[in-house]
Amino acid sequence: MAEFNDNFLKACRREETPYTPLWLARQAGRYQKEYMKIKEKYSIIEISTIPEVSAEVTLLPINQFELDSAIIFSDILIPLGPMGISFEYKKGYGPLIHNPVRTVADVEKLKVVDPATEMWYTGKALTILKGELNVPCIGFVGAPFTLASYMIEGGPSKNYETMKAFMYNETKAWHLLMDKLGTVMANYLNFQIESGAMAVQIFDSWVGALDIDDYNEYVYPHVEKMIQIVKSKYPNVPLISMGVNSAHLIPSLRKANPDVIAIDWKTDLAKTWKDLNYEVAVQGNLDPTALFADWSIIERKTKKILDSVKGKPGHIFNLGHGILPGTPVENVKQLCKFVHEYTRK
Amino acid sequence: MAEFNDNFLKACRREETPYTPLWLARQAGRYQKEYMKIKEKYSIIEISTIPEVSAEVTLLPINQFELDSAIIFSDILIPLGPMGISFEYKKGYGPLIHNPVRTVADVEKLKVVDPATEMWYTGKALTILKGELNVPCIGFVGAPFTLASYMIEGGPSKNYETMKAFMYNETKAWHLLMDKLGTVMANYLNFQIESGAMAVQIFDSWVGALDIDDYNEYVYPHVEKMIQIVKSKYPNVPLISMGVNSAHLIPSLRKANPDVIAIDWKTDLAKTWKDLNYEVAVQGNLDPTALFADWSIIERKTKKILDSVKGKPGHIFNLGHGILPGTPVENVKQLCKFVHEYTRK
Repeated sequence: MAEFNDNFLKACRREETPYTPLWLARQAGRYQKEYMKIKEKYSIIEISTIPEVSAEVTLLPINQFELDSAIIFSDILIPLGPMGISFEYKKGYGPLIHNPVRTVADVEKLKVVDPATEMWYTGKALTILKGELNVPCIGFVGAPFTLASYMIEGGPSKNYETMKAFMYNETKAWHLLMDKLGTVMANYLNFQIESGAMAVQIFDSWVGALDIDDYNEYVYPHVEKMIQIVKSKYPNVPLISMGVNSAHLIPSLRKANPDVIAIDWKTDLAKTWKDLNYEVAVQGNLDPTALFADWSIIERKTKKILDSVKGKPGHIFNLGHGILPGTPVENVKQLCKFVHEYTRK
Repeated sequence: MAEFNDNFLKACRREETPYTPLWLARQAGRYQKEYMKIKEKYSIIEISTIPEVSAEVTLLPINQFELDSAIIFSDILIPLGPMGISFEYKKGYGPLIHNPVRTVADVEKLKVVDPATEMWYTGKALTILKGELNVPCIGFVGAPFTLASYMIEGGPSKNYETMKAFMYNETKAWHLLMDKLGTVMANYLNFQIESGAMAVQIFDSWVGALDIDDYNEYVYPHVEKMIQIVKSKYPNVPLISMGVNSAHLIPSLRKANPDVIAIDWKTDLAKTWKDLNYEVAVQGNLDPTALFADWSIIERKTKKILDSVKGKPGHIFNLGHGILPGTPVENVKQLCKFVHEYTRK
């Protein structure tokens, strides 16, 4: 086995690396024919809960591309099952929640489960991967707001009006819900670290729907607490905070003290990093749709991002959101190679 | 008939008004039982193309609430029909395009139509309204990017990857498409002004999906040209530029020289206005989901916006996006009344 590549971890700590390390959000997924073959046999929930299959899918992009980190293949909604939420993935729709959370009683019924007992499969998959990988593996959870959006809306939503009405008008129940989710997810991150994850990421994909006042009042305390639970136990494990359309929330995301902030593709990464006084690492931020363009355009856009930060320690190259189904695999391969070659010192 | 209320027009020109004028995006719509009754008889396309019905729907909120402007009821896709695009509204999905634009030939086939001949019904509706209203009526169009997103994707889209691939890889055809759309829409705005619209708004709802480099390269020249076509003919008719999730594009939106920039609810309106040196009027920006909250929360959020700009001339109060179906009518009524009372000098 080749020497362990810890460049991703070093970049999370803003230490010098021989080149800019990278991984790609949703690097295992529907754009790969190998993944689609596995999907013919297993559902997303099965892939996430059968450790051997989860590990196999996690390894697919690592074997295909020059990547500096793996990320465990799972789904952010997986812990909701044990907590008492019944759901399925409906084709062409997304997750459909059978028993959405709409009342105080619904929130009270939710179980604060022990991840080691209930989500043992994620731990097992991480343990398998530890023997297979020579790059770190990232563990992850969905953030309380994003998970609550599915639980309350009952599925994907455009405007989140049902959730926001609950948040505004049933504030006590809202905070109880966020506290329960925050506790389970923080413990789940710790369990993933104990099982072999060398970094962790919190996905708050939809939190950008809130203005900063609402974020600070209804969400921030719970995210801060989550990060404290993880950091007080594992201060040296890098923690990444990720949102989309949430540039306006960055001052608050920063305050919660993650090691790395992921920047979406619409936000000026170099300027944002400067505004953060370079006191935190940054991850990003190529537009995932750029991978549908001819290589000359991908190269121009990638160079622009890399040039803007001039190889400063603490930049992890990534997309500004997940790889999309239909993305040409050849472009992904060339992108990974290019980032390494272009930034090698 | 009461004296004509031109406070909205004055605010667009950054002139003093006795109170902060307001109107609400999608102020006529599915949250009103009167509208739903009309919808039982007519489709959106029929409402938009039968002048008497369009005028009737436009008047609904004017008769119910204290509003300082009407906005013609129509749909941004209406002009696509005459241009050669066939579409229908599918329940629970949105607009479904039967012949999406995917090739250079598809773009070449699109007709650059004369609005006075082809969209005569909008002109007729505006003429009817001129006799009924004692506030101005806003005319509007969809912007080329947002219209192109439907035309190329074939319907609503989450990531716009088909459109962006076309934009990146078929750049010449893309610019031809944008030019055709820009020309028709600019002429359509001029026709609406000639028919009675006293202000106009360009809806670029989805343009926030682009980073600023792509916006400047693929979209800006067409928006600038549109605004020039209108402004060279009607320099004194206020023109409003509106997008969502597009705070990162505001410097470019400003450069195209609209009179008013609409600010979404996630963006700090007062700070944005200051950054713009107060050289343009601003419109916004209450979170539309706040209208689902108890009045005390709506009042607090509304006060915060109004206090932040201290009644400075050039602020038009509005939502940060359209009113949502299900919004309690009573809250809309109270909001309009409150804005006037709270800001009266």
